[in-house]
Amino acid sequence: MLDYVSLEGDLDAEERLIRDTAREFVAEEVGDVGEHWLDGTFPTGVIEEMGELGFFAPNLDGYGLPNVSETAYGLLMQELEACDSGLRSMASVQGALVMYPIHAYGSDEQKDEWLPRLGTGDAVGCFGLTEPEHGSNPSAMETYAERDADGYRLTGSKTWITNAPIADVALVWARDRSAEGDPVRGFLVETDRDGVSTGEITDKLSLRVSVTGEVVLDDAFVPEANVLPGVEGMQGPLSCLTQARYGIAWGAVGAARDCFETAREYATDREQFGKPIAGFQLQQEKLAEMATQITLAQLLAHRLADLKEAGRLRAPQVSMAKRNNVAMAREQSRVAREMLGGNGITADYSPMRHMANMETVYTYEGTHDIHSLILGHDLTGIPAFE
Amino acid sequence: MLDYVSLEGDLDAEERLIRDTAREFVAEEVGDVGEHWLDGTFPTGVIEEMGELGFFAPNLDGYGLPNVSETAYGLLMQELEACDSGLRSMASVQGALVMYPIHAYGSDEQKDEWLPRLGTGDAVGCFGLTEPEHGSNPSAMETYAERDADGYRLTGSKTWITNAPIADVALVWARDRSAEGDPVRGFLVETDRDGVSTGEITDKLSLRVSVTGEVVLDDAFVPEANVLPGVEGMQGPLSCLTQARYGIAWGAVGAARDCFETAREYATDREQFGKPIAGFQLQQEKLAEMATQITLAQLLAHRLADLKEAGRLRAPQVSMAKRNNVAMAREQSRVAREMLGGNGITADYSPMRHMANMETVYTYEGTHDIHSLILGHDLTGIPAFE
Amino acid sequence: MLDYVSLEGDLDAEERLIRDTAREFVAEEVGDVGEHWLDGTFPTGVIEEMGELGFFAPNLDGYGLPNVSETAYGLLMQELEACDSGLRSMASVQGALVMYPIHAYGSDEQKDEWLPRLGTGDAVGCFGLTEPEHGSNPSAMETYAERDADGYRLTGSKTWITNAPIADVALVWARDRSAEGDPVRGFLVETDRDGVSTGEITDKLSLRVSVTGEVVLDDAFVPEANVLPGVEGMQGPLSCLTQARYGIAWGAVGAARDCFETAREYATDREQFGKPIAGFQLQQEKLAEMATQITLAQLLAHRLADLKEAGRLRAPQVSMAKRNNVAMAREQSRVAREMLGGNGITADYSPMRHMANMETVYTYEGTHDIHSLILGHDLTGIPAFE
Amino acid sequence: MLDYVSLEGDLDAEERLIRDTAREFVAEEVGDVGEHWLDGTFPTGVIEEMGELGFFAPNLDGYGLPNVSETAYGLLMQELEACDSGLRSMASVQGALVMYPIHAYGSDEQKDEWLPRLGTGDAVGCFGLTEPEHGSNPSAMETYAERDADGYRLTGSKTWITNAPIADVALVWARDRSAEGDPVRGFLVETDRDGVSTGEITDKLSLRVSVTGEVVLDDAFVPEANVLPGVEGMQGPLSCLTQARYGIAWGAVGAARDCFETAREYATDREQFGKPIAGFQLQQEKLAEMATQITLAQLLAHRLADLKEAGRLRAPQVSMAKRNNVAMAREQSRVAREMLGGNGITADYSPMRHMANMETVYTYEGTHDIHSLILGHDLTGIPAFE
Repeated sequence: MLDYVSLEGDLDAEERLIRDTAREFVAEEVGDVGEHWLDGTFPTGVIEEMGELGFFAPNLDGYGLPNVSETAYGLLMQELEACDSGLRSMASVQGALVMYPIHAYGSDEQKDEWLPRLGTGDAVGCFGLTEPEHGSNPSAMETYAERDADGYRLTGSKTWITNAPIADVALVWARDRSAEGDPVRGFLVETDRDGVSTGEITDKLSLRVSVTGEVVLDDAFVPEANVLPGVEGMQGPLSCLTQARYGIAWGAVGAARDCFETAREYATDREQFGKPIAGFQLQQEKLAEMATQITLAQLLAHRLADLKEAGRLRAPQVSMAKRNNVAMAREQSRVAREMLGGNGITADYSPMRHMANMETVYTYEGTHDIHSLILGHDLTGIPAFE
Repeated sequence: MLDYVSLEGDLDAEERLIRDTAREFVAEEVGDVGEHWLDGTFPTGVIEEMGELGFFAPNLDGYGLPNVSETAYGLLMQELEACDSGLRSMASVQGALVMYPIHAYGSDEQKDEWLPRLGTGDAVGCFGLTEPEHGSNPSAMETYAERDADGYRLTGSKTWITNAPIADVALVWARDRSAEGDPVRGFLVETDRDGVSTGEITDKLSLRVSVTGEVVLDDAFVPEANVLPGVEGMQGPLSCLTQARYGIAWGAVGAARDCFETAREYATDREQFGKPIAGFQLQQEKLAEMATQITLAQLLAHRLADLKEAGRLRAPQVSMAKRNNVAMAREQSRVAREMLGGNGITADYSPMRHMANMETVYTYEGTHDIHSLILGHDLTGIPAFE
Repeated sequence: MLDYVSLEGDLDAEERLIRDTAREFVAEEVGDVGEHWLDGTFPTGVIEEMGELGFFAPNLDGYGLPNVSETAYGLLMQELEACDSGLRSMASVQGALVMYPIHAYGSDEQKDEWLPRLGTGDAVGCFGLTEPEHGSNPSAMETYAERDADGYRLTGSKTWITNAPIADVALVWARDRSAEGDPVRGFLVETDRDGVSTGEITDKLSLRVSVTGEVVLDDAFVPEANVLPGVEGMQGPLSCLTQARYGIAWGAVGAARDCFETAREYATDREQFGKPIAGFQLQQEKLAEMATQITLAQLLAHRLADLKEAGRLRAPQVSMAKRNNVAMAREQSRVAREMLGGNGITADYSPMRHMANMETVYTYEGTHDIHSLILGHDLTGIPAFE
Repeated sequence: MLDYVSLEGDLDAEERLIRDTAREFVAEEVGDVGEHWLDGTFPTGVIEEMGELGFFAPNLDGYGLPNVSETAYGLLMQELEACDSGLRSMASVQGALVMYPIHAYGSDEQKDEWLPRLGTGDAVGCFGLTEPEHGSNPSAMETYAERDADGYRLTGSKTWITNAPIADVALVWARDRSAEGDPVRGFLVETDRDGVSTGEITDKLSLRVSVTGEVVLDDAFVPEANVLPGVEGMQGPLSCLTQARYGIAWGAVGAARDCFETAREYATDREQFGKPIAGFQLQQEKLAEMATQITLAQLLAHRLADLKEAGRLRAPQVSMAKRNNVAMAREQSRVAREMLGGNGITADYSPMRHMANMETVYTYEGTHDIHSLILGHDLTGIPAFE
């Protein structure tokens, strides 16, 4: 596996173990991921195993969670996405977008109820932030909650929600109309409640190994105890996004690395004009650039891990890494695909699948352009979003 | 429709008619092409209608063929590919790769037998050149023919053959071992002959609205009368490729134009941060570049048509146009897709489908790199293929 | 010379003549342009010869001007810029920015006085629009005119004015504070008037074969007769810019073509590893892409000529061509330079000089970004400049 | 100064000191580097001061050399090149290409004679490897040595030799024809010897703050004691190049960082359309990408330092960093220049100067393409140079 500047030499034993465990898992348990992609199915059977292996929020502590290093967590995301972005997305949502906010902002009762079940994969969670009319600007959300008896009634519509159709619980972000200034609050909504429905989006050409859907709330009641007590305002969902983007920055490197290794192997095996195509200058230039870009992205991911571990990670640094590493994987997956010629358009090889997936990854959790503007804001002090 | 330098003003009535006919056809007859793509099916029901409308080799004369201008032919390819590359590919193969060589190199009997049937869509043809081990270097083909009684016995394996599973006849290129120097010859092989089988390739992530397969020849006999008498050597298949690449150079512009129009409409409709996203600088820059690149490609396609009409078109000029226009469509379809955000990954909008298709189009009929080397050879006089 | 799609075949005799005349002129009269570049000097001695050869506004009629076709005019710009952008800039300013507005908006007396002298190169003109604080947004200009006796007094400062230090007359655009709404008006200011000074900008790293300076107006008086009567408002200077940008769109192709030819010749002559470097795949790919991009730019320039000749040319079409063709030349000149290795950094070869010049050309007459926004506005109907 | 992932926090006191010393030196001692560039002069007066400050081969030990860390050495190169590539080149040649090989391969007498003098800047050295006909393939060198009495006579011509016209000693690589197999040997040639001449190359458009020339050897005699005893074959010069490329990989980041800071400051100061141009999306996207690419290059440079310090640095890793970081600086300096508009073409701002310099840096010490092929070879095991 490409490790051109010997970063693996810095890993400790636990980090190597989680990486190897994940590699073995995707090799042996997931099955033919190309077939899943063509069929548009997620291998739901592996969720419990992922839980047993500690793949959900392993960087958190307590509640039976492994509390591994941020590097270990990143390596896990990398290996899952080297298999398929859908697999990593499932774990990202479960861990960074559902377990993390419960862990950070939840009541003791909420933690006790949900963290063990989500951690083992006994329950599945989803994260309801994006709305049909509000993608890049979530603060314009229309979903609202109104006090009713000893709880709230929620109304609104969330879409592009990973895991929604298989989720037991949705963390829904909504404006609390009963409070001064309509602050955004987080609500833990069990999906079997009256007024809650989750439809599946089935006509995707990307991230097909992922169950994506809507969460429609039609005057759905949740008790007061389901509100996350520890956060109010956009800081709530945004802090979750920072966690998830951190995992994406690592994961995208895994997808790119898998493309590189596939292309390198293909090019050294495949002969045309009497020699391996890896011996042609035009192909070597592609491999050289791929290896370089992947190495740079690895360095950035590892650096983020160190900063995160030290408690010094700033959200715009994560934006830089999400933006760069995904754009890199998007570009390099295409180069890898082209190196495979006609064979590269089939599900027998991973690059085209990764390339198609990267369109989703490029778009979700803050589009590339939005991260450009987050960085621009941070670098100049001037916002240019509007 | 984008026509930034008013090229449509130069069209004559017949050219406008064929363009409008094709536009109407794809709008009304093809059905939901996104569904076909997801399902991996070709709308075989429209083949006869395409024949009736004169969509197969309309630039040829005689045998009931329309003999329209090369511009008209190009416009037709453009409109078909604005719908889907699979549709254009079907017509390209039928017209440029099967009917053209029969017209150019066939015997009178071969022309009488096949051109009317292929022209009306009563029969379907395919073109057997590429082999599993010989993609970019077809002259290394292993398929061979040996004389037997008053015909030939063919053995070998062709792959990535558009239309193969639905074809009535395959134009197979093979080395004639019975002749001095093993020259390449063209053989019209009816697919119901003994020893001929055509398997379908079903796990494609690109060009899914196209029936692709293999043609396997296991000692298959064809009579002497099935050999194309008018050509010998690689010039035979290469001259067909020039015809097909000409159509691709036009077609790719159609795909890109469809992406542009979809993105422009989406961007002017879709609001974020309180205004249409078309009002943001980052999106305008994308539209400006897309419009420019499409306009340039249109100019090149139109110029090729003029040169072809005048009998002055050289094969490397077609390489330039195939290479540029497809690379352009590949790049710009991705930009269009990203402008559509999350909605852009669904089959509800065309850009991601076009983007996926372009990977095939980038690869077949001479990969981008091969065309770079064809141009390099032509520009410097030095071959660098090997 | 690169003419990959045989556009030269469409030229008429006059067009060929003006092209050949210009080619001969730059080859024989300009001297060592690389030396001029290093020294930062313009070969002022050739201005009169340029006039004699009819190089200033030859597309205008009357007043002894040649009234050649717009294609001929474009070809002239192309050949001048194939030598150096400084040479083309001198002619562009003289013809498109000074003679054109006098021709279009001047009084008979103004035309009689200036057009013959400027046309023959007996006088030199410059165009005062840009101000130190107002580059991309000229309508914010601060230079103003106030009525005084039978004329106006002008105050303000213009900069980046090509030809200013050698100009006999400056066409200065200023806000007329004496009129309702402070409309922009054009003033013909002889540079020897009191209160007019023109300083030279000498520390340029680009376009060094061009005399660039300021025009500072300190209560400078011009008589009423020096005001252009035929235009008011920003339409005046903007219409001139359209003329000049048309010439730039052609000229940039000349610079790029010269880079290409230099690189092609170098690559076929220069041997490394035992063969001409033109025989290496990495170099062929560069030549292929350069040839393609130049061909596309040629097609766009020729198309503009046809539209201009037919009176159908719209300003945003010129923006598209200026933006694309200059960006193309900027990129490809760099590729050509790199193909020349170490020799490519000297004045012995043209690519690095062209490459450096292109930074100016990319910036003046509307930066690349401004043209993106002009196109974006035209394509979407939504302005995004502010 | 841009340090987006807080790498400076990892520096130790000595590293900070050398960085700050270099920053202060370039700010206060070098003078107006833009003027030097325009004039094509090197500030030779500062060479002794550079020596006193320990800027020449500070990472070597003994002979009065500072023996600082590889990170400190890299930071020094970064700060020098943030001023100008010419300054860094002078130091690179002196340190990595002359002092390093004497230190690594020299006799005790050679070390005693040269290292103190070169280290203090009392003497200047140059490195004679490249020949007029052998740029990318130095092993084809024609310069040769033949035994004569108790020494050698050298004949041949070296070009593109940084420092040559001001050098006291040239380390000349030549084929020893007196030995079996004509092995390449290193010869310390004092430039005042008979038969040695050094001409200056004066018509450069790049790296103008650098004295570049030729070393012509016409039967020049050197005694046996002037031959480097410790190395034979291409490994000699190639190992020096690895040292120098390491410094370039760091230095290029400095140039890019200076461009970024200049552009950021300009964009926040400069107003158009009523607000700082830094507030426009198109400009923010440029800053975001620049900051990202610089950050990635910084990470790679720092990683190389760690590997070098640990004795684990492989030459192809240095190729990756030289290739990437220079290409990055070349690209981003151009973006910075364009952000400065018209002002960006003057010597008042650094980006265009850096941009021009980068063409040399892109080319020397192994062109970008050669490093692509070095990487390709390392990644695939297949050489594709020829």
